[in-house]
This record gives sequence, structure tokens and C-alpha cells, in this order.
Amino acid sequence: MWSCITDFFTYETTKSVVVKSWTIGIINRVVQLLIITYFVGWVFLHEKAYQSRDTAIESSVMTKVKGFGIYNNNDCELVLSQGASIFCIITKMITTENQIQGFCPETESKYVCKNAAACKAGKPAGIQTGNCVPLNATHKSCEIQGWCPAEVDTIRTIPMPEVEDFTIFLKNSIRFPTFNYTKGNFLPTITQQYIKTCNYDKVKNTYCPIFRVGDVVAYAGQNFTNLANKGGVIGIKIGWMCDLDKSDDMCKPEYTFTRLDAMSQKNAVSPGYNFRFAKYYKMDNGTDYRTLIKAYAIRFDVLVNGNAGKFDMIPTLINMVAAFTSVGIGTVLCDIILLNFLKGAEQYKAKKFEEFVAVSVQKTNSCR
Amino acid sequence: MWSCITDFFTYETTKSVVVKSWTIGIINRVVQLLIITYFVGWVFLHEKAYQSRDTAIESSVMTKVKGFGIYNNNDCELVLSQGASIFCIITKMITTENQIQGFCPETESKYVCKNAAACKAGKPAGIQTGNCVPLNATHKSCEIQGWCPAEVDTIRTIPMPEVEDFTIFLKNSIRFPTFNYTKGNFLPTITQQYIKTCNYDKVKNTYCPIFRVGDVVAYAGQNFTNLANKGGVIGIKIGWMCDLDKSDDMCKPEYTFTRLDAMSQKNAVSPGYNFRFAKYYKMDNGTDYRTLIKAYAIRFDVLVNGNAGKFDMIPTLINMVAAFTSVGIGTVLCDIILLNFLKGAEQYKAKKFEEFVAVSVQKTNSCR
Amino acid sequence: MWSCITDFFTYETTKSVVVKSWTIGIINRVVQLLIITYFVGWVFLHEKAYQSRDTAIESSVMTKVKGFGIYNNNDCELVLSQGASIFCIITKMITTENQIQGFCPETESKYVCKNAAACKAGKPAGIQTGNCVPLNATHKSCEIQGWCPAEVDTIRTIPMPEVEDFTIFLKNSIRFPTFNYTKGNFLPTITQQYIKTCNYDKVKNTYCPIFRVGDVVAYAGQNFTNLANKGGVIGIKIGWMCDLDKSDDMCKPEYTFTRLDAMSQKNAVSPGYNFRFAKYYKMDNGTDYRTLIKAYAIRFDVLVNGNAGKFDMIPTLINMVAAFTSVGIGTVLCDIILLNFLKGAEQYKAKKFEEFVAVSVQKTNSCR
Repeated sequence: MWSCITDFFTYETTKSVVVKSWTIGIINRVVQLLIITYFVGWVFLHEKAYQSRDTAIESSVMTKVKGFGIYNNNDCELVLSQGASIFCIITKMITTENQIQGFCPETESKYVCKNAAACKAGKPAGIQTGNCVPLNATHKSCEIQGWCPAEVDTIRTIPMPEVEDFTIFLKNSIRFPTFNYTKGNFLPTITQQYIKTCNYDKVKNTYCPIFRVGDVVAYAGQNFTNLANKGGVIGIKIGWMCDLDKSDDMCKPEYTFTRLDAMSQKNAVSPGYNFRFAKYYKMDNGTDYRTLIKAYAIRFDVLVNGNAGKFDMIPTLINMVAAFTSVGIGTVLCDIILLNFLKGAEQYKAKKFEEFVAVSVQKTNSCR
Repeated sequence: MWSCITDFFTYETTKSVVVKSWTIGIINRVVQLLIITYFVGWVFLHEKAYQSRDTAIESSVMTKVKGFGIYNNNDCELVLSQGASIFCIITKMITTENQIQGFCPETESKYVCKNAAACKAGKPAGIQTGNCVPLNATHKSCEIQGWCPAEVDTIRTIPMPEVEDFTIFLKNSIRFPTFNYTKGNFLPTITQQYIKTCNYDKVKNTYCPIFRVGDVVAYAGQNFTNLANKGGVIGIKIGWMCDLDKSDDMCKPEYTFTRLDAMSQKNAVSPGYNFRFAKYYKMDNGTDYRTLIKAYAIRFDVLVNGNAGKFDMIPTLINMVAAFTSVGIGTVLCDIILLNFLKGAEQYKAKKFEEFVAVSVQKTNSCR
Repeated sequence: MWSCITDFFTYETTKSVVVKSWTIGIINRVVQLLIITYFVGWVFLHEKAYQSRDTAIESSVMTKVKGFGIYNNNDCELVLSQGASIFCIITKMITTENQIQGFCPETESKYVCKNAAACKAGKPAGIQTGNCVPLNATHKSCEIQGWCPAEVDTIRTIPMPEVEDFTIFLKNSIRFPTFNYTKGNFLPTITQQYIKTCNYDKVKNTYCPIFRVGDVVAYAGQNFTNLANKGGVIGIKIGWMCDLDKSDDMCKPEYTFTRLDAMSQKNAVSPGYNFRFAKYYKMDNGTDYRTLIKAYAIRFDVLVNGNAGKFDMIPTLINMVAAFTSVGIGTVLCDIILLNFLKGAEQYKAKKFEEFVAVSVQKTNSCR
């Protein structure tokens, strides 16, 4: 019994051969140095493997647009889904006033007809009556039942140049739940006075939370006139890369801007961004009528991402162990060189390997 | 000093025993083969461990619904939060016209009363007056102050069958920021002509960005009539799994469809999807009145996910090192077999282990 | 040829030195025990490394707010973007009735002027006419062209106390795509009867999907009166941490509440949450007029997160291999102790290391 306990508390270590050779010795140390450099430089310093990391950022975004335009000189009605992280600024509108329920010719060119035979009634083409009625002095068009008169969306209107000077006010609060760390894009250094006058730019006012539309569009590499004319989607990205081992002041938002519907630029098919909405009214006699608006808009998507790191014992230990054991990996490479390419390889082999043939097995001739 | 430098540039390698035995030799090589197969087949070919991976896909979604119905024969008013990645198509409406601020009986059956004692005034039941007033010829109900008359939402209406033929137009632009790779669901092969006529299906038109509502509902495994009657939420998932080492043409969207409020099917409690909204009007004398609409709708959530991989030296090296070192793991298994289950195990032990008893420690009897 | 095959099917194992020493033996076993404890306790039991994990939770959220207030006693109009995972409850409104397009003085104090020189016309200050006109009996203000009269948003209004008793009904369906596992926050144990009467609380009704606004605000650590007065953003987080190896009943939602715009509490600059919207009307003569509403609101963001784990062979094997090989890491530590700090270190060295000097290299003097 006792002998088994003593047997248990033994320590088994590998028997090693120490090769005294300049060539292989230098190779060995250089390989080890490279591995250590990789771990210290990349894994520890660059990738911060000594930290535990929280990527599940919680974010709350509030937005407010300020500006005055010809079509709309209030800061509100231009903006849909106010306060969310997606909002639009309308740049151009095609308004069809006083639509009432009734019968009228379609205005799209594909519904032009010579006679009723060209107009299918009912599904799937919609509530078509199947009649071919005069559209204007020269053309006839298929008749529909619905809100009349039908919209003519080929009218050329020019976008509001005022939109370029609109400002977007962004309020972003973030939290890293693992570390219970909360911060906002209103840095403590920002004063009430500064906010009233500042405009974000990439050089001096990198933390001002107020963005001029024209600047945002320019930073996204877009031409404002083209974008306002066709509509489009601009992404405002707020990046929070925080090293919580450093001072709290170092955890700051970084703003970047891209065009998100980048496809629209390359593809001629259906470019831009537009949508329709209506305002409803009632006549004295109770009849509904409405104003239909086709709006071209710049949509802004606010995307928040980020991660925070903080020193933690467990990843530090795991990565240190990984580093130490990885140093041993150099041996694999050195063994290959030592046993195959170095002068005196046969001697090394004889020293490193002890051959053993089990008694129960007949000895065979070796090709060594 | 010099001797220490020569001492530093040495190379230490393990001394090995080479066992010439068919049994253990074959086991050894088979185990190594399995490990290599795992790494080559699973880690490298299947999991593509030689690539660095970007899962932080940036996405922009635009949607447009086209269709004509009885209630609403315009493509716009049916759709709330136009252009976002969530939109609704109303399938059924209960309209309460001409509501004005005043006093009226509640219509919900739980407010039926015999006398005022059954009606609590004020909080928490809302703005109840505490009176019990006639609801119709036979019943009385608690009186409320508010928009009157109260909505009767038990009216049976039938959903619009036209919705099944509505089409959803999806424009999705994605970007993998790590690789600065941008792509859209309008593949370069898609022509203006094709878009005008195509409808997505799973066999031939797998890249057409126009989806018939009926098809989407069917692909999600739902019955259109039931869904339209109760309302529900359908997820349109766009998956982008891109191997950027391959041709750009291979990075394509894959569309899948599921019912997201799957719970509603199993649970009898509050099934479906509906919401209320109102249109506001003013009488000549300035009195506000409104039309309250309870809408049953199919909500579509467009969910974009994806990841891209591209060859990168660092993960390739790390995984190759992991593969090489893992081959050595077979030794653990073989040692167990060799030292315990093979004939001549005692001989192996004697050869593999050299016993060493430190002089300072008294020699003890061994149980070996 | 044959000899090469026999040569291939050999097995190479390290030659080991077994050190019989109580000191190093105990250290060795203790280190191994620590490593095994770490793997069993932390990696396997705590981190559940034997499971494959799905973090790409698919979620669908539906919300409905019920309540009656003074300003609005219908449950609908208070809530914007109904049914989405973001919704607002308006607590306070500043209403500007009967605005028409025209000319009027600005009401903000920064536009107060003595004469026209203080008022810049046109951009960037908006559609200013450049005139200085009387605002009231004592002050003059710059004139603007737009919806008139301008809003006076400094009017003090009190928030609706009724909002505290509003209830939020949350329907959340989730799916883990990897395991094709679907679940909802209406647990199978919840009856129609229970839902009609229950209110979520953290002690007894932890799975009731109906939340009183006052309770949610209190759980988020906020004072209702302050929050209602300034507006703010409350996050309702639904966490799904599911171990699919256990019974289905164990996969339940956990609700937590935080204030998301936490910044607003600390920073005096622009606190709270408010937005503007308008209701549009038409006079008999076709003139547009509108009611502008500045609304202070509590915004609720429903955030769903979660992950599911299920036993899987591949991670189990990988982690067991990692555990076994890591046990060997103790050797590194023991070797350092053995060869440097233990009595008889020189003897160990002599036994462990065999020196080898290649014949082609001149023997050098050693510093050992």
C-alpha cells in the first residue's frame, strides 16, 4: 500500500539530448525568438490577449434633425421614425393633391392603350376596369378604380438645396454589460456652450455630436446634388473601442460615414431611395380625399458597434501557457533540420533514438 | 563568458525510444492518419481555417410593396415604416368612423354591468365615469370618457385576398468592412428587363429580388388565409456566405423564409398580429374627430446575416502548427496501449523509463 | 522495400526519467490536480465546453400598450411604430394649434432682436426674412417664413400620471437556427385566465408577459415623475440562456430593465427624450393648417439576446484532448523547480540531459 503511494508521488520528465552545435543552436534560438516575438507583439500587445472582452455592446440612439427648407420649413415633418436609429430627410417631393376614390386613366407609360383589348380587368394587374380611356389630347390609357387622379411621377422637380445645411444631432449612450461600464457620446469635456455652436469635422471637432448633412455626405464620398436627386442611404457608424485598463477619457466614440446602398451607384436598375405617403382629409359631406406624396429622401442609418477589454486573470494565464508551450514547437522544425539536413545527421539519430524490438516480435532487417 | 554564449546556443531535443512492433506501429500510424484527416478534412476544408473571417456584416435594406386591394388600392398606405427592414401589409381592417371626444358605453363584454356599483371610477381601469349606461336594447355597460363611440372589434370582416398577389421588392446592399467588400442582391447578371417581369421562386428565379406575398407565405410553410385572418410575422432571411478566395460571382444572397411568431401557432393565447391607428380630421367649428382603424397585418422582418472568409497567413500558420502538434497527441493513446495492454509491456517500461532516486532522499521499496 | 514498410510501422515515444522524490512528486501531482480541476470545473461544468453553442438567436417581438390618459384616452395614438421592438409612450405634450403657412416672429430667446441688423436673412439660419418684428408687448424677434404662429416650447405642462399604470404586453418568439429550436415567452404553463390578470414582478410572476410601466421604470432604478417629465429611454432586455440538454421547461426568458440613455442623467446637456409631429388639416378653401405637437415620451427598446448549448461530439473531443495535453504542462513548472531549486539539482541534470557534441564541430569548453 505504502509503496503504491510513494509510487504515485513520483515525477516523470522526458530525457533530453543537448546538442552542442552552433548551426542548430542558433536556428533553435532564432525560432524560439520568433515565437516569443509573435506572442508578445501580436497576441499580447496587439490583440490584448490578457484582457477579457465584451462585444455585446448595448446602445441607445436618439436623433434630432434641425433645418428649414422651401417645401417644409419645420424640422419635424421631414423626419420619419423620429428618434430611432434610422431616420430620413426628404430632399424632393412629387405631390398629387386632392385625390378622391373614383375612376381614372393610369399614367404610367406601360398602361398606354389603343383599345380595351389591351387592358386586362382585375387581378393580377390590380383594380383595372378593363376600359381604355383618354389620358390626354393624344394618348389613351387603361382605366383603374382607386385614388384619382393617378400620380404622374415623371414630373421633374429639383431637390431642396437647403438640406445640405440641415444638422443632425446624435445622442448615443452605450453600455458594456460584462463590465457594467456606461458612457455617452457627450464627453464630459463638452459644454453647453460648445454644443450650441459646434459642427462635427474630422480634424478639430471630432467629438461634436452635431453633424451638418453636407459634411456627412461628403465624408461618405458622395456628391450631394446627385444623392439628393435620387435619394440614398448613408450609414453613420459610431465605433467604441475601449481599453478599460486605460483612463476613462480614452474611451471615445469614433464616427465614420459610408454610403450603405452602394449597389445603387453601380447598378442602373432602380437607383436611389424613395417612398410614398399620404395625408388624409375629409370634405364636409364626409368624402375622403388625400394628398399623395412621393418623397425622395436621404436615409441615415446610425450603426453602433464596439468592444471593450479589461485585464482578466483567466485569459492571461491561458495565453501565457499557450505561449510557453508554443516555444516548444520550434523543436519540431529543428528536429527536421537536425536529422535530415545537418552534417552528422546519422550521429544525431543514433543518439536521439534508441531502438527497441519487442522480444515477442521477430527482428526484421531495417532499411536505415 | 564565451562558454556561456556557446552554452546558450545549444539545442535540446527529447531522447526517443523507437519501438519496432507491428501492432503498436499500425495503431500509431492509424491514429496519426485520423488526426491528419480531421485537420485536413474538417478544420481546413470544411471550416476553412486558412481564412480570416468577417462576421460583422454591414447591411442596408430597402423595401417597396406593390399591389392593389379593395380597402386600399394604393401601394403606399398599406405599408408602415416604409423602407426599413420591418414593414407590414394590412390584410384586414375594422374601421370606427367619426369618433369624437365624449361619453359613451364601453363595448368589451367584460365591462357589461347591471348598475353603477359594478363600474369603478378612474384608475386603474382608465377614464371610467363610474356610471352604468345602456349599450344596446338589452345590455348595459360601464361608461367611459374618451373617443366615442367605442370600437366594436368583434365585427367579422374577411381579409383581402388580393394581398396574396402583392409583390415585395427588396433591395439589399451589404459590406464586409474587414475586406472592404461590397455587394448587392441585384446581381450584375440581372437586367432591367428581367426585373420587370421576374418573381422569386426557389427553382429558377433564385436571385430575382421581387417576391410574391403568397409565395413567401407558402415558403414559410403557412396557410395564407389563416395568416391573413389573424395576422402574423414572417421573416425573410438573406444569407450571404461568401468565400472571397473564389470568384466574385460566387458571393450570392440566399433567401429563406420562416414564420417568426411561431409561438402564436401553438399557443391559443393572443394569436396573430394587429395594431390600431387613427386618422385625424377637424370639423368646421374646430372640433377634432377621427377614424380609428384596427388593422390585422402580415409583418415582414427582413433579417440579413452572413460572413466572408479570405485567405490569411496568420490563421493558416496557427492552424498548421496546431495540426502538427496534434499529431503528437496520438502518442498519449499509444503509450497507454503499449505500457498496459501489449505483450512485453514490462520490457517497454524498462526501456522507456529510467528510474532515478535522489541521493538526499532515502530509497523506498517500489510497488512496481 | 519491405524493410521500409516495417520501418514505417514503428512507434516513437519519448524516453523518460522517473524521479522518485517526495517533494517534486507532490508538487507534480498538485499541479496536475489544479489543471484537471480547472478543466473539469471551469471549462466543462461552468463553460459547458462539451456543447456546441448557437448565439445567432432569431427573435420576433410584438408589443401592445394599454392605458387611458387625460390627453389621449385611447391605447393607440400614444404609441409610435406599433408592434416593433421600439415603442414610445407619450407622457407630456406641448400642442401648437392652427398653424398656417405665413410670416411670424421666432419665439426662441436667441432670436430676440432690437432691429433688422440683428437678423440675417436666408441660409444658414433658415428661412429668415431678415426683419425684426414685435413678439409681444415688450420684445421684438426676428421674423421667419413658415408655419405660424411659432411654437412656444417653454410652456410648463405636467406629465400624465396615468402612464404609470399603463401596461405593456410583450410577445416574443425566438428560434435557435442551429438546433431548430423554437420557443416563446408565453410559457406552456400560462393560461388565458392568468394572462388576463397577471402583472410581471421579480418575485412571483417572473414569466407574466404583461408589464406595468411604473414597475418597469422602478426596476430600471428610475424615478417615474422625473422620467415622465424629461422623457427617456428604458431598455427591456429578454435573455434566453438555454441548455437544450436539460428539460424544455428550463429554457425560459429572463427579463431585466435598465435605463439606456444613462448619459442623460449625468450630463446636463440636452437631457431626456422628446420629438415633434404634426396633424394636417385642410380648410374649406383648400388652405393647409396643422397642429404641431412636441411630445415628451418614455421610449422602450426591447432587446433580445441569448444563446443555446447542446451536447456535441466535436467540441467534447477537442476539449478533452486539450485537457489531457494540458496536464503535461505541469512538467514545465516542475522541471524548473527540479533543475534549479531542489537539492541534488546537479544529479537531476546529469540524468535528464545527455550531452552530445557533433564530431564535425570542435568541442568547446562548457560553462556548466
